[in-house]
Amino acid sequence: MSSDRLMQQMQFILEIDRLKQVVRQTRIIGGSRQENSAEHSWQLAIMAMVLAEHANEPVDLPHVIKMLLVHDLIEIDAGDTFAFDEKGYLDKEDRERMAADRIFSLLPEDQAAPLRALWDEFEAMATPESRFANALDRLMPMLHNFHNNGGTWRREGVTLQKVAARQSAISKGSTALADYAEELLDEARKRGIGPAQ
Amino acid sequence: MSSDRLMQQMQFILEIDRLKQVVRQTRIIGGSRQENSAEHSWQLAIMAMVLAEHANEPVDLPHVIKMLLVHDLIEIDAGDTFAFDEKGYLDKEDRERMAADRIFSLLPEDQAAPLRALWDEFEAMATPESRFANALDRLMPMLHNFHNNGGTWRREGVTLQKVAARQSAISKGSTALADYAEELLDEARKRGIGPAQ
Repeated sequence: MSSDRLMQQMQFILEIDRLKQVVRQTRIIGGSRQENSAEHSWQLAIMAMVLAEHANEPVDLPHVIKMLLVHDLIEIDAGDTFAFDEKGYLDKEDRERMAADRIFSLLPEDQAAPLRALWDEFEAMATPESRFANALDRLMPMLHNFHNNGGTWRREGVTLQKVAARQSAISKGSTALADYAEELLDEARKRGIGPAQ
Repeated sequence: MSSDRLMQQMQFILEIDRLKQVVRQTRIIGGSRQENSAEHSWQLAIMAMVLAEHANEPVDLPHVIKMLLVHDLIEIDAGDTFAFDEKGYLDKEDRERMAADRIFSLLPEDQAAPLRALWDEFEAMATPESRFANALDRLMPMLHNFHNNGGTWRREGVTLQKVAARQSAISKGSTALADYAEELLDEARKRGIGPAQ
């Protein structure tokens, strides 16, 4: 019989399947449906592989990749909070901390701790790796919006000011990508698909 | 203006969005819909993080993760070939090689080559990393089938013999996981949800 340890690891792998059912506001390119947080995490991890050279500071790429793979797992319990949902942000931190407590602790203790630490690091944005990972996480929906005729930028209440505030976090991880994000936003506004003034 | 190099990298990141629309035969746990190859790749990458200790030989974990993240990109052009589709397997290799030629070459040359090499390595199964990555790729649908009341095991033409043939590849990467797969299969047959004799 397989060991208890392996059984515990399998329980975790089964549990994370549920992230495929957490739906984001952003739509996949082409717009046919909303994307889910599992496929979003996958795309960010490849994005890190491709764009690492644009980080402001040298980053440990495998560390960035691992962080991005697990950064949204807490949404299994806490749900995806839309970037411009002010009410949702009020208790976001509590909901997410409780989720992390439960989900990571499904793993054997020696594995739960380092995976949980990756999520804490992502949230704190205090290392070059987490700043770069957050930059990618914020840039990606801008790419989707731009290529989806404005996407969530055109929802009520999403203003240029609010987008710019989120965008400023990109520059902490990568000024090159922040410049690119600004070009996207300028071009979107020229085309009339950007956020409202 | 952002550099041509960054523009080329972004083109690749946009292109891979299409993997979210490549649908596999396997269903997500709960069975509500078929899973796509993007979210599948994400789950395998985390699986590698959690199960690396069970590989037959020591593996370079970041290398395994990167390989799993890109291993299905060719399906954007070549589609997902169901494991038990004998006709589909006749021209699978040609279709996939052409797909790799196109998709990876969207990247700047210095990045296209190493990413393409990861896919070639995965296919050749000649390194400890690729054998372990393939073991995970074969184990995952068994987990899904087991927890989805038999899933694709119960389709016409899928016999125990055919499942066992695919399963044997698991032992090349991890005998511990191959033992686990066998337990799953035994238990599935006991419950009457396994493949036909």
